[in-house]
Amino acid sequence: MVELQNDRLLRALARQPVDRTPVWVMRQAGRYLPEYRATRARAGDFMTLCSTPELACEVTLQPLARFPLDAAILFSDILTIPDAMGLGLRFVEGEGPVFERPLTSRSEILKLAPPDPDIELRYVTDAVRLIRKELAGSVPLIGFAGSPWTLATYMVEGGSTREFAKIKALAYTDPGTLHALLDVLVKSVTRYLNAQVEAGAQALMIFDSWGGVLTPAGYKRWSLDPMREIVAGLKREHEGHRVPVILFTKGGGQWLEDIAATGADGVGIDWTTDLADARRRVGDRVALQGNLDPSVLYAEPDEIRTEVRKVLDSFGPGPGHVFNLGHGIHQHIDPDHVAVMVDAVHSHQSD
Amino acid sequence: MVELQNDRLLRALARQPVDRTPVWVMRQAGRYLPEYRATRARAGDFMTLCSTPELACEVTLQPLARFPLDAAILFSDILTIPDAMGLGLRFVEGEGPVFERPLTSRSEILKLAPPDPDIELRYVTDAVRLIRKELAGSVPLIGFAGSPWTLATYMVEGGSTREFAKIKALAYTDPGTLHALLDVLVKSVTRYLNAQVEAGAQALMIFDSWGGVLTPAGYKRWSLDPMREIVAGLKREHEGHRVPVILFTKGGGQWLEDIAATGADGVGIDWTTDLADARRRVGDRVALQGNLDPSVLYAEPDEIRTEVRKVLDSFGPGPGHVFNLGHGIHQHIDPDHVAVMVDAVHSHQSD
Repeated sequence: MVELQNDRLLRALARQPVDRTPVWVMRQAGRYLPEYRATRARAGDFMTLCSTPELACEVTLQPLARFPLDAAILFSDILTIPDAMGLGLRFVEGEGPVFERPLTSRSEILKLAPPDPDIELRYVTDAVRLIRKELAGSVPLIGFAGSPWTLATYMVEGGSTREFAKIKALAYTDPGTLHALLDVLVKSVTRYLNAQVEAGAQALMIFDSWGGVLTPAGYKRWSLDPMREIVAGLKREHEGHRVPVILFTKGGGQWLEDIAATGADGVGIDWTTDLADARRRVGDRVALQGNLDPSVLYAEPDEIRTEVRKVLDSFGPGPGHVFNLGHGIHQHIDPDHVAVMVDAVHSHQSD
Repeated sequence: MVELQNDRLLRALARQPVDRTPVWVMRQAGRYLPEYRATRARAGDFMTLCSTPELACEVTLQPLARFPLDAAILFSDILTIPDAMGLGLRFVEGEGPVFERPLTSRSEILKLAPPDPDIELRYVTDAVRLIRKELAGSVPLIGFAGSPWTLATYMVEGGSTREFAKIKALAYTDPGTLHALLDVLVKSVTRYLNAQVEAGAQALMIFDSWGGVLTPAGYKRWSLDPMREIVAGLKREHEGHRVPVILFTKGGGQWLEDIAATGADGVGIDWTTDLADARRRVGDRVALQGNLDPSVLYAEPDEIRTEVRKVLDSFGPGPGHVFNLGHGIHQHIDPDHVAVMVDAVHSHQSD
C-alpha cells in the first residue's frame, strides 16, 4: 500500500499534534453538489448508486476534487445491512427510506442472520477497494455503519418516523425480542466494519442517528451497550496502523461521559453541545469531532468564518479535534460556502 | 369565584407538601380519546374546534370525566397567535399545521402587530371563562402559549420542518429581523397569557417545542431570552392567588440551569433527562414537571406501573414534582393505559 500523505485525521483521532485541525463533512458526497446530482441521475436510483462500486467511488471522490478535505468517507447508506438481510430497501422521493418487508413479529426477527460482507455486501467492500486505489494515499478513507439501535428503528418502523411508536412499544412490551434483534445487528455491523477495514478503510464511524430519542436508561441499554460490543469486536490495527473508531449519537449530548467510556477513539458531537463543555466532561479519553450547526452554511462567508472560529476556539488549544458539521450537510447549501468553511478551518491560528 | 377543591398542582409548583403527587397529561384532551374524535368530527375541522368556546370547553373537560387528573388544560393550539396575526392557519391531514401566508420578507415582519386578546383571540378567553365555570373549582385550569422561537419557526418555515433551514438561515444572515419578529411575539404572548389569567387561568405553561434544535448560544439568544422577558411581564397574582408559570423546552436537558434561572416556577423535563439529575442541577429554585416517556403507555399495565414508579423515585421525596409525560401523548394510546398511569401516580408511597 502507498504511504498516506495526509494523516491529520488519524493523528487528531489519536490526540497527537497536527499542523492544522483536520476537517471533513458529514454527507460531503451528496445532493448539494451538482456533480453528485448528475451522477445520481445517471445511476437512476439511489440504491443503484450505492451498489455500483464505480459510481460509489466516483461520488466519494467528488468533494475531494473541490475542497482540500482531510478525509474521504465511503459513499453508501446506513441501511445496506437490513437490505442485505432481505427487508427490501427503497428510497421514496420526499419520504426517505422505506422497507418493503419491515419486521412485524418475533419469528421474523429470530430468523434474521448476519449478512456475509463478502457476498451480500460485496459491492461495499469492492467500493472501498476501488476508492482506496483511486485515493492513492492522498487522504484516509473512513468506513461506516449505522448503530444497531438506529438500524432496528428503521427495520421495525418500516421507514422514517417521528414517534418511534413501534420500536419503543417493542422495547417496553417485549424487550427479549428487541435484544435478539440488536444481537444479530451487533454481529452484522461488527463483521461489516471489519470487512471494510480488510478492504482498506483506515478509520471507522458508527452513526447513531436515533439514540437521542431514548430515556437515559434506554439509551444505555438499547443503543450504547450494542455499540460498545461492536467497538470491542473491531479490528483496531491493519496494515501496521491503528484504525480509529468514532461514535456519533445525534442528541447524545447528555451522555458524553458514557459514550467516551466505550473504548472508542473519537466521539461525534452535535451542535447542541458546546465543545468546551464536552471536552471538560470527557477529558483526554477521546478525540472530539464536530460541531458546526449545518445551518451556518446558509450564512454569508464572513459569518461562516466567525462561526467556524467559535467552534475551533470552543475546543481550544491542544490535540484531539476533528472539525465537522454537527450533523449532515443540507441539500440546498451553496458548495462555495463549504469551501469558505474548509478554508476557515485550515487557516485558523489558535491563540 | 368558588374555592379550589384540588390544589395539588399549585402547591407542587410552589414546592409545598402535597398528599399525592399531582398528575396531568400533555395533550390530555386529544385524539387518543374516542369522545374527542367524536367532538372533532362534529366540529368538522380542527380550527373550528379551537375557535368555538363551547366545543373547546367540551373537549377540555373530557379527560377529567375519565381520569382523576389534578389539572385541566385549556384546549387550544400554540399557533392561535400567528393565525390572529393574519398568517392563515390550516391543518392538513398527515402534514400538521400549514400557514397560507408564511413570512418571507423583513417588510412583512415589520408590519406585524400583537393581536388584541380581547378581540382577535376573544374565542380563547371566552373558552377559558366557560371552562372555569364548568370546572366549578374541582381542579385548576392551566392556560398556555407557544414560545416566541417556536412560533417564529412555524411562521417562517410555513409549517412543520426537520431542518429549520429558513428560520436558521434568517438567524445567521439577518439576526436583526429575527429579533424584530421575536420582539413582537414576546409582546403578543405576554398579552395573550395575561388575558388568559384575567379570564381565569390559574397556572400558565409556555411550550418551547423547538428550542432544542439550536446551539447553546442560539438557544439563549433566540429561545430563552424571549421566554425570560415574557415571564417578567406576566401577572403572577390573580384573585389573591399566585399564578405559577412552567417553561418547557423539548430537548432542553442540557440547559436546565439556565431555564431554572428565568424566574419561572416550574420547568418541564422531557424523558431524555433523568429527574434525579435534573433536581440535583436546579436545586430548590423551581418545581419539575415530567417525565415519563410517552411510549411507555404502549406497554402492559404492570410495566406502566413499574415505569411510573421509576419516574417518581427518580424525583425522590420532598415537594416540587408535577407528574406528566415527557411530551404529548401519542394518538394510538389506549385510554385505559392512561387510567393505569394516573392510578399508579396517586397510589405511590415514596420510601
